[in-house]
Amino acid sequence: MIPPGFVITESEVKAMSMQRGLSLPDLLPTLVPIAQSLARVPISNYAVGAVGLGITGRIYLGANLEFPGLPLHHSVHAEQFLITNAANISHLSTDQITHIAVSSVPCGHCRQFLQELRFASDIQILVTDNSTVKMNPSFVSSPSYASLSSLLPQPFGPRDLLHHTTPLLLEAQNNTIILERQQQKYENQPDATLACNGRNGRECDDMLEKEVMSAAERAATKAHAPYSGCPAGFAMGDEEGRIFVGSYAESAAYNPSLGPVQGAMVSFVAGGGGLEYGRIVTAALVERKDGFVSQESTARILLEKVAPNCLLRVYHCTVKISSA
Amino acid sequence: MIPPGFVITESEVKAMSMQRGLSLPDLLPTLVPIAQSLARVPISNYAVGAVGLGITGRIYLGANLEFPGLPLHHSVHAEQFLITNAANISHLSTDQITHIAVSSVPCGHCRQFLQELRFASDIQILVTDNSTVKMNPSFVSSPSYASLSSLLPQPFGPRDLLHHTTPLLLEAQNNTIILERQQQKYENQPDATLACNGRNGRECDDMLEKEVMSAAERAATKAHAPYSGCPAGFAMGDEEGRIFVGSYAESAAYNPSLGPVQGAMVSFVAGGGGLEYGRIVTAALVERKDGFVSQESTARILLEKVAPNCLLRVYHCTVKISSA
Ligand SMILES: [Zn+2]
Ligand SMILES: [Zn+2]
Repeated sequence: MIPPGFVITESEVKAMSMQRGLSLPDLLPTLVPIAQSLARVPISNYAVGAVGLGITGRIYLGANLEFPGLPLHHSVHAEQFLITNAANISHLSTDQITHIAVSSVPCGHCRQFLQELRFASDIQILVTDNSTVKMNPSFVSSPSYASLSSLLPQPFGPRDLLHHTTPLLLEAQNNTIILERQQQKYENQPDATLACNGRNGRECDDMLEKEVMSAAERAATKAHAPYSGCPAGFAMGDEEGRIFVGSYAESAAYNPSLGPVQGAMVSFVAGGGGLEYGRIVTAALVERKDGFVSQESTARILLEKVAPNCLLRVYHCTVKISSA
Repeated sequence: MIPPGFVITESEVKAMSMQRGLSLPDLLPTLVPIAQSLARVPISNYAVGAVGLGITGRIYLGANLEFPGLPLHHSVHAEQFLITNAANISHLSTDQITHIAVSSVPCGHCRQFLQELRFASDIQILVTDNSTVKMNPSFVSSPSYASLSSLLPQPFGPRDLLHHTTPLLLEAQNNTIILERQQQKYENQPDATLACNGRNGRECDDMLEKEVMSAAERAATKAHAPYSGCPAGFAMGDEEGRIFVGSYAESAAYNPSLGPVQGAMVSFVAGGGGLEYGRIVTAALVERKDGFVSQESTARILLEKVAPNCLLRVYHCTVKISSA
C-alpha cells in the first residue's frame, strides 16, 4: 500500500486518522516503515524512511537513495526526499512542514538542509528507531517530538544571508528563464541516438524530447537558488514517455544543496512504480551558461552510471531570479 | 605572516602564548583573521577562517575553498580544511583536536563531518563573529567556547555504524593497497601530454609522474573509508615538480565526505604559496576498480575546471581496509 507519488492527500489523511483513532502527529510514525521500504540503498543497505506532515494536511513520504560507482555526495537522504517530494507536488499550492517522523536520527547534513524552510526551527522531529538515539536515555522509553532547533541550535542558514522577504524552499518561486536561441546540444555518447530510435518500437519523433525540454524549463523557474543566482531545472523521459522533473534546491551552507538530477530521481522513485533508472532514455538540463554554479558535469556522470542509454541535452538560459 | 603549511609547531605555539600572555585556547581566536584571509571564495565572497588546537600543542589553520563552474558540493569548508590539514601533517604522529575557533558558526554539514573524530562531542568551539549567532543573545557579549555536543546534540556518527576499535579520522590508518599490474591510463584530453612536455623547459621523463603515482598510493593507505571500504588517494604535481596529496575522508552520513582531490587542494593551498591551481600539470588517483564508491568521475570534472592542462592517470588497486 504505497501511496501513489509518495503523497497522502488531505482527505485520505483525515480518513486514516479517524479510522485509527490517532492524531495527525501520532499517525506519522506508523507510516515510517512504509517509507523505509522504498529506500534504494545498494551501498549501505541502511534504509531510512521519513514521513512529513504539511499544514495543508497532506503527508509526504521520503526514503534514501544511493548511486554506486560515484562519490557519496550524490546520495539523497530520506529527509531531503520528503522535502523534494513536497516541493515537486506542491508547486501550485505551497505547503509548510510542521512534523517529521524519521527512522533514524537526522544527520547534520539534513538538519542543515531543513534550514531552507520557513520556520525551520519549529519543525517537530520524532525518531522512531531508539537504537540510534541510545546516547540520550530520555528518548529510549517512548519516542516523542522535539524541535529542529533543539537538534541544531544556533543554526547557520538563510537568515544569515538573505533578505527576509526572499522566498525560501517550499515557497512560491518564479524565476524568469529565457532559453538561448542557439540551443547547444551535447551527446552523452556517440550512439545515444540509436538508443532513442530503438526504444520499445516508439518512433523517435522529437516529441518527447521537446516535452522534456519544456518540463526542464518549467522546473528551472521553480528552483531555489538565492545564494548563487544559478537556478537549474532537469527533466527526463522514460521508455513509456512519462516525464520526471527536478528543480535545484540550494542550501545556505552550499554542500547540502540538492541537485536537479537528484530532484528528478526523487520524482522517478516516487512516481515510477518501482522501475529501474535504466528505463530513462532522454533528459534535458536547463541552466545558465558559464554560471558560478553548473550542474552539467555532475548530471552527466550520474546519468552515465544509472541510465547509460539516456541522451542528455543541455539548454543554456538567461535568468532573472525570483524575489519578493 | 602565514605559517608555512598552515600549521604552527608546538614550540612556536608555546612562544606565541608566552609572548602574548594568552592561554592556548585564548590564542586561537586571535589567529582566525589570518586563516580567514587565505580563503578562496570566488562564488560567495564569504571568507571563513578556522583555527584548531591539537593535544600535541600544534595549531592548524583552515579556510574555505570554492570552485566555480561546478555543483556546490565540491566546496571545502574551513573546518574541513583544518581537519584535512591536520590529517595531512600528522600522519606519522596522530593528533586530536580539542579546540576550534571559527569566524562564523559551523554549519550542520561541518558539525556532522567533525563527528568522524574520536571524542568529537568534547571538542570546544568558539565563534568569533557574533553577527552570525545573533539569534542567541547569550553569545553576543563575549564569545566563549561551547562543546560540539551542544551544537549537534544526539548526533548520528561512527558510533552508530563502526566497531569501537575501528580507527577514526586523525587516527593511524593503514589500508593495504595493491596496485593492479595492468595500470589503466586515461587521458583528460587528447593533447594533455603536450602540456606535460612543454612545462617550464622541464623534460617529461616520467619521473614526476612516477612520484605522483607513489604519493597517491601512499595517500590511499592513509584514507578513512570504513563505511564503503573504498579508500582512495590522490596526488598532483605542479610545474616546479612539487607534489601535493590528499586522502579520502569519509563521513558516516555519506554526503559530507571529503574527496581525495579536495584533500590535495587543501595541501596545495596550504603549501603552494598562494599559487593558482592552473599550475598543476600531472595527477594520479588510486582507487578500487568497480568500487561502490568511485572518485574518478568527480576528480575529472574538478580538474577540468581548475587545472585544464593537468593529465590525470587513474590506477586501480585491490584493498584491505585498516582495522584495529
Ligand atoms: Zn541525513
Ligand atoms: Zn560548514
